[in-house]
Amino acid sequence: MASEKEVTNNGVEWRIKMADGASEILVPEAKPASNVFLGLQLFIAGLALKVWKFLQKAWDLGVDDPRKVIHCLKVGMALTVVSIFYYMRPLYEEVGGNAMWAIMTVVVVFENTVGATLSKSLNRVCGTCLAGFLAIGVHWIASQSGERFEPVIIGSSVFLLASAATFTRFIPSVKIRFDYGAMIFILTFSLVSVSGYRVDKLFDLAHQRLSTIIIGTALCIVVTMLVCPIWAGQELYALITRNMDKLADSLDGCVAEYFQDGDGSLVDSGKERQKKLRGYKCVLSSKATEETMANFARWEPAHGRFNFQHPWKQYIKIGASMRNCAYCIEALNGCISSENQAPEYIKKHISNSSLKVSSNSSSVIKELAVTIKTMKKSSDIHNLVKEMNSAVQELQADLNSFPKLFTSPSNSESQIPENKKIEPAASRTMVTLPPLMEIIPLVTSASLLTEISSRINGIVDAVEELADSANFVPASITDKCQKNGVE
Amino acid sequence: MASEKEVTNNGVEWRIKMADGASEILVPEAKPASNVFLGLQLFIAGLALKVWKFLQKAWDLGVDDPRKVIHCLKVGMALTVVSIFYYMRPLYEEVGGNAMWAIMTVVVVFENTVGATLSKSLNRVCGTCLAGFLAIGVHWIASQSGERFEPVIIGSSVFLLASAATFTRFIPSVKIRFDYGAMIFILTFSLVSVSGYRVDKLFDLAHQRLSTIIIGTALCIVVTMLVCPIWAGQELYALITRNMDKLADSLDGCVAEYFQDGDGSLVDSGKERQKKLRGYKCVLSSKATEETMANFARWEPAHGRFNFQHPWKQYIKIGASMRNCAYCIEALNGCISSENQAPEYIKKHISNSSLKVSSNSSSVIKELAVTIKTMKKSSDIHNLVKEMNSAVQELQADLNSFPKLFTSPSNSESQIPENKKIEPAASRTMVTLPPLMEIIPLVTSASLLTEISSRINGIVDAVEELADSANFVPASITDKCQKNGVE
Repeated sequence: MASEKEVTNNGVEWRIKMADGASEILVPEAKPASNVFLGLQLFIAGLALKVWKFLQKAWDLGVDDPRKVIHCLKVGMALTVVSIFYYMRPLYEEVGGNAMWAIMTVVVVFENTVGATLSKSLNRVCGTCLAGFLAIGVHWIASQSGERFEPVIIGSSVFLLASAATFTRFIPSVKIRFDYGAMIFILTFSLVSVSGYRVDKLFDLAHQRLSTIIIGTALCIVVTMLVCPIWAGQELYALITRNMDKLADSLDGCVAEYFQDGDGSLVDSGKERQKKLRGYKCVLSSKATEETMANFARWEPAHGRFNFQHPWKQYIKIGASMRNCAYCIEALNGCISSENQAPEYIKKHISNSSLKVSSNSSSVIKELAVTIKTMKKSSDIHNLVKEMNSAVQELQADLNSFPKLFTSPSNSESQIPENKKIEPAASRTMVTLPPLMEIIPLVTSASLLTEISSRINGIVDAVEELADSANFVPASITDKCQKNGVE
Repeated sequence: MASEKEVTNNGVEWRIKMADGASEILVPEAKPASNVFLGLQLFIAGLALKVWKFLQKAWDLGVDDPRKVIHCLKVGMALTVVSIFYYMRPLYEEVGGNAMWAIMTVVVVFENTVGATLSKSLNRVCGTCLAGFLAIGVHWIASQSGERFEPVIIGSSVFLLASAATFTRFIPSVKIRFDYGAMIFILTFSLVSVSGYRVDKLFDLAHQRLSTIIIGTALCIVVTMLVCPIWAGQELYALITRNMDKLADSLDGCVAEYFQDGDGSLVDSGKERQKKLRGYKCVLSSKATEETMANFARWEPAHGRFNFQHPWKQYIKIGASMRNCAYCIEALNGCISSENQAPEYIKKHISNSSLKVSSNSSSVIKELAVTIKTMKKSSDIHNLVKEMNSAVQELQADLNSFPKLFTSPSNSESQIPENKKIEPAASRTMVTLPPLMEIIPLVTSASLLTEISSRINGIVDAVEELADSANFVPASITDKCQKNGVE
């Protein structure tokens, strides 16, 4: 039994995260033991390993985002407060057995963000009130219509209203905002209309239940808003700006990797670089989060730099335009990692202009991120867009001069002459003409870059729309100097 | 008051969907009326119009998917049955006031698909049991430790367990499958440990509550599985095959539109065609649905052609590989609708081979859809993939012969000679050389087509993995004949 005890001890030690790892525990005891005992030991060790891994994952999650831990402590706090309230006999007598509704409300309504908590609270209170009054009405009608019809009226009203309310939960506009309210409506209506009390007792009951629900929701709202609040709006805002930076970095990284490779620089900063390159994937996968956050943000009061009527919907549009851009980066990535690649000397020809397009494009995106971060209209953005567009035209001019290049094959081995403005070679003799095949990946990536920069214009439009509807002030010259100083 | 009554009447008429539209109601009464009255009238008419639009949307939703209506009737039925059970006094006395838990269970647990209902039911029962026993234990310990420590022990245990359980809800693997269970755990633990009853009464209470919850869940499960069941697995399966068809159609449509346009064929079948072209967008946006369905499908027993251990996770992989392909189609679409287009005579050169690649690619996708639909390993798929790959090589060869073409500018105006195998023109005199600029969109779309066909190989692999793990039988020759006959 010694080993079992040891395993249990280890289980306890893991919870407080001792330094000695799981591998030590897995070493079997040296004593001779029966097969059954050994099997049991292995089973326990395997289980312990699983628990250990689970705890490790949980620990990492907590370290990664301590606000999650704070949220858990907030839930614990709110529940303890409401439980003590319930536990105190005098208060308990006051609201009757209905005090449990306060606990239930706290458990069900308390969410991670202020907006979600507010949304659920209001849904719960409104759903309960509406259904309560309706149910009392139906109950009164049923009680007036004699013992024979009473169950028929109650049964059919429950059937009809529950079906109708369930159906509204399928309608997208209701589902987004009032899904929980519809559920509470069905619940309260069924409970009250079926309860079998007399109407005057029902009013007592409704009063108690409503007051406990209001106590619960009020506690939740106070705790969620006052103790380290997590605002859905702030989260959405941070997500969008973070994604913009990621998009800019991965665009820059992709193009740089394509044109500056071959010198082994990939090796030294492998993992970090890969992460940067794959940043656009976050943009691709954050649609659902953006929509949820924007929906919750609409319920939130003014906070931080956001007023109550802040145009949260516009962030969804910005997100969509960013995703539009990310699709092309994903295709660009595919093209870059494809097997047949253009020879280096051909690559060199458009390398400079491609890098310029990508760096100009990413500066536009970064400037947009700064616009949103500072909530000030950028004075630079139009210049940056102009620069991006002129870089695109330069790239197209470079592409256009391709066939001319191949009229002088002696130059094409490794070095391309700096002055690309060779005279039109229409009447010269062509000696070699490299197959189009070789430059296809290059042409494709250049074309995708062009498409990306044109889609960036979509992001610019969406951000400008946000700046207008949220009344961003124009950035003053001092801001600009400060910004340059910081950067 | 006549007009108000009329509006109300109309409100009732709309519910039964009369033919006379909302426009009639909006005509104001001819009588002279005060401004306030007119304003009220307008307000009511506006409100009525909104309600009318809402009802119309709901009606369309119901017509679009009648199973949603059936689901609502099922919820209504289950609730009515459990309400009648609650309403019957003898039964009511039997389980005490706790009968409301049965109603609550039905409202909360009844979901659209069998898998979701099962998942919530099991979560509810397990969460309640686990928390109930734990709470009774804590309660017993607290009651033994004297009046002074009792609230401290209960308060701190609620705080700790609620915080810990809330934290587990953040861990992805728990969140996906046991989120609801963790919530019910917190709820039950708080309610029971705080309840202030003696332990022997607690056992009574626990027994009653558990039995009502089991009655509720059993009713939900029976109704959801026996009355027109909607299986999450079946939904996922249908979604994947439907998306495959959409992907194939939109790939075909995109390429056809690009190469066969200019003859005005866009006009005649505008809307339907646009819908077909945009089919790939469904693939892009169905990630969340796929994951939810796959998660619920795992809870479902064997149904239809799916056994209990059907590899639902593989469908997520297939979905991901399809999305991978859809990203490229989205880029291709952007490239096709870009402003600068290749002249028709250049387009013609690769039109045939591009159309061949797209039609072969879409046949591969359609064959994969058939494989999943029939659940039989396709005998054709390898031939189709071969054909697709050879079409890709043909396209590349056509691209390769581009520069050669332009050595004979006299041909280039409108007609391209059928035999493309012109002798290498290395030493000939070039008269005109069209700028690369003109063929960039063409080269890009050809390159994206190549990328799409290579990504289709990813879908083929994913489907083959599914065929292996789900033990699809090879299609017999009779099947093939039947299939061809049907098509």
